[in-house]
Amino acid sequence: MRAGASPESIDAVLKRVEELGFRAHLSRGEERTIVGVIGDERPIDPEQFESLDSVERVVRILQPYKLASRDFRRERTIVNFGNIQIGGPGIVIIAGPCSVESRSQLLETAHAVKEAGAHALRGGAFKPRSSPYSFQGLGLEGLELLAEASEITGLPVITEVVSPTDVPTVGKYSAMFQIGTRNMANYALLHEVGRSGRPAMLKRGMSSTIQELLMAAEYILSNRNYDLVLCERGIRTFETATRFTMDINAVPLLNELTHLPVVVDPSHATGKASLVAAGSRAAIAAGADGLIVEVHPHPERALSDGAQSLRPEQFASLVRECRDIARAMGRGLYGAVS
Amino acid sequence: MRAGASPESIDAVLKRVEELGFRAHLSRGEERTIVGVIGDERPIDPEQFESLDSVERVVRILQPYKLASRDFRRERTIVNFGNIQIGGPGIVIIAGPCSVESRSQLLETAHAVKEAGAHALRGGAFKPRSSPYSFQGLGLEGLELLAEASEITGLPVITEVVSPTDVPTVGKYSAMFQIGTRNMANYALLHEVGRSGRPAMLKRGMSSTIQELLMAAEYILSNRNYDLVLCERGIRTFETATRFTMDINAVPLLNELTHLPVVVDPSHATGKASLVAAGSRAAIAAGADGLIVEVHPHPERALSDGAQSLRPEQFASLVRECRDIARAMGRGLYGAVS
Amino acid sequence: MRAGASPESIDAVLKRVEELGFRAHLSRGEERTIVGVIGDERPIDPEQFESLDSVERVVRILQPYKLASRDFRRERTIVNFGNIQIGGPGIVIIAGPCSVESRSQLLETAHAVKEAGAHALRGGAFKPRSSPYSFQGLGLEGLELLAEASEITGLPVITEVVSPTDVPTVGKYSAMFQIGTRNMANYALLHEVGRSGRPAMLKRGMSSTIQELLMAAEYILSNRNYDLVLCERGIRTFETATRFTMDINAVPLLNELTHLPVVVDPSHATGKASLVAAGSRAAIAAGADGLIVEVHPHPERALSDGAQSLRPEQFASLVRECRDIARAMGRGLYGAVS
Amino acid sequence: MRAGASPESIDAVLKRVEELGFRAHLSRGEERTIVGVIGDERPIDPEQFESLDSVERVVRILQPYKLASRDFRRERTIVNFGNIQIGGPGIVIIAGPCSVESRSQLLETAHAVKEAGAHALRGGAFKPRSSPYSFQGLGLEGLELLAEASEITGLPVITEVVSPTDVPTVGKYSAMFQIGTRNMANYALLHEVGRSGRPAMLKRGMSSTIQELLMAAEYILSNRNYDLVLCERGIRTFETATRFTMDINAVPLLNELTHLPVVVDPSHATGKASLVAAGSRAAIAAGADGLIVEVHPHPERALSDGAQSLRPEQFASLVRECRDIARAMGRGLYGAVS
Repeated sequence: MRAGASPESIDAVLKRVEELGFRAHLSRGEERTIVGVIGDERPIDPEQFESLDSVERVVRILQPYKLASRDFRRERTIVNFGNIQIGGPGIVIIAGPCSVESRSQLLETAHAVKEAGAHALRGGAFKPRSSPYSFQGLGLEGLELLAEASEITGLPVITEVVSPTDVPTVGKYSAMFQIGTRNMANYALLHEVGRSGRPAMLKRGMSSTIQELLMAAEYILSNRNYDLVLCERGIRTFETATRFTMDINAVPLLNELTHLPVVVDPSHATGKASLVAAGSRAAIAAGADGLIVEVHPHPERALSDGAQSLRPEQFASLVRECRDIARAMGRGLYGAVS
Repeated sequence: MRAGASPESIDAVLKRVEELGFRAHLSRGEERTIVGVIGDERPIDPEQFESLDSVERVVRILQPYKLASRDFRRERTIVNFGNIQIGGPGIVIIAGPCSVESRSQLLETAHAVKEAGAHALRGGAFKPRSSPYSFQGLGLEGLELLAEASEITGLPVITEVVSPTDVPTVGKYSAMFQIGTRNMANYALLHEVGRSGRPAMLKRGMSSTIQELLMAAEYILSNRNYDLVLCERGIRTFETATRFTMDINAVPLLNELTHLPVVVDPSHATGKASLVAAGSRAAIAAGADGLIVEVHPHPERALSDGAQSLRPEQFASLVRECRDIARAMGRGLYGAVS
Repeated sequence: MRAGASPESIDAVLKRVEELGFRAHLSRGEERTIVGVIGDERPIDPEQFESLDSVERVVRILQPYKLASRDFRRERTIVNFGNIQIGGPGIVIIAGPCSVESRSQLLETAHAVKEAGAHALRGGAFKPRSSPYSFQGLGLEGLELLAEASEITGLPVITEVVSPTDVPTVGKYSAMFQIGTRNMANYALLHEVGRSGRPAMLKRGMSSTIQELLMAAEYILSNRNYDLVLCERGIRTFETATRFTMDINAVPLLNELTHLPVVVDPSHATGKASLVAAGSRAAIAAGADGLIVEVHPHPERALSDGAQSLRPEQFASLVRECRDIARAMGRGLYGAVS
Repeated sequence: MRAGASPESIDAVLKRVEELGFRAHLSRGEERTIVGVIGDERPIDPEQFESLDSVERVVRILQPYKLASRDFRRERTIVNFGNIQIGGPGIVIIAGPCSVESRSQLLETAHAVKEAGAHALRGGAFKPRSSPYSFQGLGLEGLELLAEASEITGLPVITEVVSPTDVPTVGKYSAMFQIGTRNMANYALLHEVGRSGRPAMLKRGMSSTIQELLMAAEYILSNRNYDLVLCERGIRTFETATRFTMDINAVPLLNELTHLPVVVDPSHATGKASLVAAGSRAAIAAGADGLIVEVHPHPERALSDGAQSLRPEQFASLVRECRDIARAMGRGLYGAVS
């Protein structure tokens, strides 16, 4: 309550708390009176109280997410992705081009990343681009090429879905949905992916807090779909020397707060090919369960994200470095340890 | 080019520029060589060049948007919204509840804001909420109530559309689409709203730059739909004392860069009812063409955004203050001057 | 406390609270136990408790500042600055060059701003510059020129002090100290300015929260120096289209939280001459008590901040616009109303 | 130049460029004309040109720092710190309390960190605190205790200097100056530390870009003092779940841009003891040359930074984990490999 709140205004708050089905608990300090609200506070909107003139501030004590929290599920979740698992002791490396551009580009990349040690293939068929004049992806043709590349190489495929209506189609061609950074708060899409019951990777919004990421996860989990991987992909800050700022703190913090596996996208989180290997090693050293890395046979001809795409030989070197760090962590790359 | 780039690597860049259909222009400094690329650079992805090892940095000279720029259209655009216009000399004030909660709540609010001087009615039927446990809006029933309130009061209605598939339905019940902050980069939605040919208000993403806002506008304009209003609604910064930071600089800057009208949402941009009037006056003093303000008859019972909603009498006082500022700007409220 | 905190760990916290001389107040919810700490909490460091394993989170209820708060002093403070006052009904406009560059430049500017209606003169003699290769100010010679310009025009002078040892000298030549954005947390300097007992303007750190600004003010006030003006000068955000983002919300919020006068620096807060007038009008409409504006007779030859400096005729037009807004606010420019 | 700039306005720019002693180079595109400025551009202030109405934008091609850049010095700098070196193959771990609180607290910590494997001791005697009501450090007595602890344990000492006038005294008692985050832009202090000729660690301002950090370094280097270590200590972002955001990208990026050694402060960069070990491993995996870590025998009784201080046994475990990561990087802890 504000300093000097009248007994009547305090009573009004107590009454409102009880109307909403909670218990109130009064605590009088020297300068302020505090009203505790006891019960499962998640469904209340704190703003209802903030709009009362006599209320100074409302502070949430419980986190607003539930199913994603470690209070709810102590053991860590292991997510099936085709024939592999994310969240166990083995570190999973997913690699491939930003966009599927052509059959030859995709197959060349898929073979190269498999040979270098990748466990799964990424590639975009539907591309959200900030300019309407940029390449927007091959769409359905891209999905078919991904399915073909998966069959030929045996690597499971993850690809982005951008619209609720595309969920069935994208689900048919890929083993895991990717929900991109621009769609973290596209709740219609989250619901539809949740309802599909198929594995998904949820990328953090580039300006979303960790709490908002976990709330977005809650949209999927509350549809009883627990095959969910979270992805830190860099946040927007004042620093412009890199495309985004990799929030490396998010990795151990998510490991404390949630049972869901966490992977890192060092390509977007740095935006610069020369920094991707260092970012990948840091992610694994911080406790990530995997990486998702952009690789292109000819980055200088890529139709998107060329500046942050690795050449196959750079990627092969990254895999070797990550293997060493994974071992130093008492883990190892997927396949070697699980 | 990097310091010490070899003549071969410079030649490779020149060749690539020409392959892409541009002219190259070489400029040798004491420490660096610069390659100018001449032509309409908008469709090129600068990253293609950044991925070349010998290239240090790519700097765009032209803005990447075109149809939204004042270079393209010198005179200011006036947007029709039901029976009123946004972008002329008269300042337009749009007001109403965050969410449509019930027939009585909506009609009470609509009558109150009309009486206080509002020119149009806002209200959400489809609500994107960060928690799946919060009120999600009345959906179709909410749209029907909005249409009824519009008919009774004569105020045109704006309401949010969150999914491309809802565009025809929402368009049937309202005079203007609102594209919310979480959907500024929902390109499928932007395209569909563009194709509808109906008026729209595009809210700036809470972490989007002004350039990204103009690029998102380009998605709508490139569908030959010029009935577009931009809205500054606060950006996310390190400051937590307010819900968002109103980027007041955006108002005069957008007036320089684009011909599209600009309105401000002082409710979200401050997040605190006690700051809304000051933010509204500032917006008009900075050159905004209008406001969109949240009003609720009982903010302490609002199902969303109670803390930033004004009571009707607070809103009436805001309208009077804004009228005075509008006159000091040599403009006036809509109706009085246009 | 964390979920599942043991009775022993709760006892340990209670004991520690009492050792520190506070009263503890226990509140048991369904999922969490909360320990209230009652007393004047300002001197406690909440981190002492956060380091206990069983403690989940510490939330401060009282604001950590005291002397700056309106709880402490209800009536607004009026600050004397030479022969004028800041914080009364009249809006004060301070103007002048970023740096004092020469006698002729300073006098030409001082005469021009006086004629245009400015109430005080600004000008930097000691310039903190991000590059050691940039112009660093004229130092003592600059102070002498400022004193001369003040004598000739009758305008009181404000100038920046950057080092505790310079406080006596700068105080001799000027009527008000300016503490710049880079020095908001230079506590040695704050103490020295506080102890001097002379009027000061404290600029908000470019990345400081409003709470941190008020804590910095507390350093000066706690030396029993209440002649203090706060200045919003733009904060650093992700937006790069403007040099800084003017935090217009800070103006009404500071007016709620503190009794100290608030001025705005629209030159730094926008960084672009073409936006300065709009920012100035917005500041006054939001409730600011004054402005501090950079003016230069030949911005294209300025040794610092040329891009954001107004020519004298642009400044004269700004003063007229601000006068109109000040009247619409029921105030007026200083001199006309006070 | 702006679109449609007149030939006269272009001539005026060319003339001004030449007046300043540079060569101009004209490049006419379809929509814009570009004027290249050739010469050592570092000393020019780009704003001089931006204030010309016909100029749209000024883009710097050369980095504004020189002595700090790898263009200037290709081989990496190794900095002497007492009897150890930072910047060679061995990773250096510096540890100790945030503040020196008492002789027993300091000696207990110093012995513990030495036993756990630390190579140097940190501890604050002059503490910049955001509240005037918080503990401000022991001052000179703290320095004497640090010198004693150094003598007893053989560990070299680093401690913060906050005022130019303290440089001689602090230099007498410690082997390396620490310039704290709030003083990164305290140019008087940077000059004085530069002139002292003694080793220093420059912490990045919490809201400073990497370019600004390198410009601040330039203040020290331009005094011919090359014994300089840079420190990433977390930046301020919108994320509030951690105290700061560790900018892990800064580590490999600084390794590309500068020859100076880079250490990381995982205590401030996370603000939470439970995240410090993960952040430390990530820093080394990203290529850092060392760490500076806060350790306290009883964090719950620490007078500052308790929440982020490790207990000695937690620190010992961190050292073991870092040793493993350092080996995986082909390096090792200092002493084992250098």
